[in-house]
Amino acid sequence: MITEIAQIDIKPGMEAEFETGVKNAAPVFQRAKGCHGLELQRSIEKPGRYRLFVKWATVENHTVDFRGSADFAEWRKLVAQIAGAFAGERRNRRAIERELFHGEYTLASKNDDDLPLP
Amino acid sequence: MITEIAQIDIKPGMEAEFETGVKNAAPVFQRAKGCHGLELQRSIEKPGRYRLFVKWATVENHTVDFRGSADFAEWRKLVAQIAGAFAGERRNRRAIERELFHGEYTLASKNDDDLPLP
Repeated sequence: MITEIAQIDIKPGMEAEFETGVKNAAPVFQRAKGCHGLELQRSIEKPGRYRLFVKWATVENHTVDFRGSADFAEWRKLVAQIAGAFAGERRNRRAIERELFHGEYTLASKNDDDLPLP
Repeated sequence: MITEIAQIDIKPGMEAEFETGVKNAAPVFQRAKGCHGLELQRSIEKPGRYRLFVKWATVENHTVDFRGSADFAEWRKLVAQIAGAFAGERRNRRAIERELFHGEYTLASKNDDDLPLP
């Protein structure tokens, strides 16, 4: 399983708009081939900072299938709609830093009822 | 549920040593109060980059209970043992960037058998 992790910094006051934008994009990922779901996490120490986690079965599901799909254009459109919420000057630093990760080691939770880790 | 996310850059060639060090630290987290497990993920695009995810029931389980425990000294000792693997000059940039996150929004997977997201 591959995890796409995007770190996104949002302008103060634009958090609700950004969160709504992510929720609006949910159907795009729900129907994407090989996509196993998405989660948005918000920083506790830096409230304008978010991390978006998207799970893909393979790297190709993300780089080829999704980026080659009609839904990728839909996703870009949705991102453009909330781009006003992104912090940072494009020339100085990127508001979005995106990387792909794969699991290397997992320590299972000590409680059976706990959710597994990412 | 709180997720502690640490981004760690490792010197080329020191990956195995680092990964072993993380595995050796597993018991410390396994017995920590409120710790719901740990996962190490490795970047696909930047092989020397890792993200370590630790799940805590509450912020205090991490900031107070763990940092106030005898096991925290044990953890620091284990980190010191693998510090030679960390990339980056301490004065220029930090090899470890650590932040706390909480879940804001989750899109469940379309497959019932899939693991939930972080």
